Amino acid sequence: MTTNPNPTAAIMIIGDEILSGRTVDSNVNTIARFLGALGVDLNEVRMVRDDEAQIIEAVRSLSVTYDYVLTTGGIGPTHDDITADCMAKAFSVDISEHPAALKLLQERAEKAGWTLNDNSRRMARIPHGAELIANPVSAAPGFQIGNVFVMAGVPKIMEGMLADVAPRLRTGRKVLSRTLRLNFIGESWAADALRDIDKRYADLSLGSYPFGLLPGEFGTQLVVRGQDAEALDAAVSELKTALEPVVEEGRKRNPQASLDEIAG
Amino acid sequence: MTTNPNPTAAIMIIGDEILSGRTVDSNVNTIARFLGALGVDLNEVRMVRDDEAQIIEAVRSLSVTYDYVLTTGGIGPTHDDITADCMAKAFSVDISEHPAALKLLQERAEKAGWTLNDNSRRMARIPHGAELIANPVSAAPGFQIGNVFVMAGVPKIMEGMLADVAPRLRTGRKVLSRTLRLNFIGESWAADALRDIDKRYADLSLGSYPFGLLPGEFGTQLVVRGQDAEALDAAVSELKTALEPVVEEGRKRNPQASLDEIAG
Repeated sequence: MTTNPNPTAAIMIIGDEILSGRTVDSNVNTIARFLGALGVDLNEVRMVRDDEAQIIEAVRSLSVTYDYVLTTGGIGPTHDDITADCMAKAFSVDISEHPAALKLLQERAEKAGWTLNDNSRRMARIPHGAELIANPVSAAPGFQIGNVFVMAGVPKIMEGMLADVAPRLRTGRKVLSRTLRLNFIGESWAADALRDIDKRYADLSLGSYPFGLLPGEFGTQLVVRGQDAEALDAAVSELKTALEPVVEEGRKRNPQASLDEIAG
Repeated sequence: MTTNPNPTAAIMIIGDEILSGRTVDSNVNTIARFLGALGVDLNEVRMVRDDEAQIIEAVRSLSVTYDYVLTTGGIGPTHDDITADCMAKAFSVDISEHPAALKLLQERAEKAGWTLNDNSRRMARIPHGAELIANPVSAAPGFQIGNVFVMAGVPKIMEGMLADVAPRLRTGRKVLSRTLRLNFIGESWAADALRDIDKRYADLSLGSYPFGLLPGEFGTQLVVRGQDAEALDAAVSELKTALEPVVEEGRKRNPQASLDEIAG
C-alpha cells in the first residue's frame, strides 16, 4: 500500500513456554484482529525467551521502529516474571511499588479472604512514569510505558486488558477485505489475473492462499485488502471477470470447479 | 542454563495473512516441538509481512545470530510469493530455474493430467547454491541456503518438509521436562519454593503458569526443564517437599488444594 497513514504496531510475546512448544500462543491472533479493527497496521511479531538481554533488545528495537508495541507475558508473581524490570531497564527508569497498583492487589486479596503475600505484592512494581492498564479479570494491572503496552500472558486476562488499551491508540482507517474462493482450482491458474490486478491497484494488497490438499477438497482463497471501499469493490469485480475463463478452463480438469465469494 | 552446548535456532513466519489476523499460525508450535525433540534450542520467532525489505533484514539478522533459521511461507506460485527472491538477495546470489525442482513439478503435473503452467513453474526458481528440501505432499520443493531452511506455509506441507530438514541439523541434548500441578493454589504461594530451587539449580529452568480463572477451576502448573535427568529429578523431588507446607496452608483457604504431577 503506497499511501497508508495508518499507525503501525508490533507485538512481543514473552515466554519460554511458547518457544519450548509447551504452550500454543493465541495472543498474536487476538491482538492482530483487535488492531485490525482499529485501523492500526500490525507489521511485525517477535517471540522471545524469559531472557533479560533479549527482551530489552527487542523492545528497544521495536519501540523505535513502530508507533506502538504490545507485549504479553512475564508480569506475574514468580521468579521468571521479569518483564516489568526489563521495561524499566529498556527505558532507563527506576521501578518501585506503585500505590494504586498495590491498592488493587490488596482489595482483591481482601475480597478473596486472604492476606496479600510478598510474591503477589511484586506485581505492584511498576516502572516510573508508566500508566496502569486495568485488569478486569484478576486485578494485577498491566502498564503503558512510552509507546509500549505491557500486558499479561494469560489469554483471558490479556483480552480484558485490551479494553483499556484501545482508547489510548491513535486509530487509522480500517483495512477492509473481500474473499473469493476458487473451488477445485489451484492457485497457479489464478496467478495471472491476480498479478494484473495487483499491479493496477497499488493501494490494495492481494493474497492467494491454497486450501485443502486432498483430491476431494482443495482450492484457493483470494483475499483483496485495502482501506478504500470503492477501489476494493472495483478490484474484486475485475478479478471476478478475469477469473471467468480460469473457471471455464478449470472445469475441463475438474467439473466441480467454481468461483464464489465468502465472508471475511 | 549456564552450560548449554545445544545448537540454537530461530523461526521466521512470512505472510500478511498471519499479521492481518486472517490466519492463525500453527507452524511455530509444530516447529518448536520438532526442534525440542532434536535438542535444538528455539530462541526467537519473528513474524513478518510479505515485504522484501523486511524479509531480507530479518533473515540476515537471524542467520548471523543463531545456528539455524527455519522459515515458512511465500514460496508458492503467485505474485505475493517473494520469499525465494528475498533469500537470493539476502545472500547476494542469483536465482534461476533449478532443473531438479522443475522435473519434480513437471512429473507432478503429468501425473495429475495437466500441463505445468508458467506460474507453477515459478516454484522451480531456487537461489544458486541452495539445496532442495523434499516436499512429499505437493512436490514443489523448499530449499536450504546456508543455515536457512525455507519451507512452505501450508501446515501439512511444512510438516512434510521437516522430515528432510531433520537429518541436516546438528542435534543437541534433548530438553527434558517434568510438570507439577498445584490445584486451587495461585502461583504467588509457590513462588518462594520455586525461586529457591531456581537459584540452586542454575542449569535448569523453572516456569510457573497459572491456569483457570474461575472459582471452580484454577491453579498453577510448575514446569522444570533441563538436559540433565538426574538434576531434574532431584529438583522436582526438592520442589515437592518444599511445596508440602504450601499445600497444607492452601487447604485452609480451599479444602480442595492439592499437588500432583502430570505428563508433559
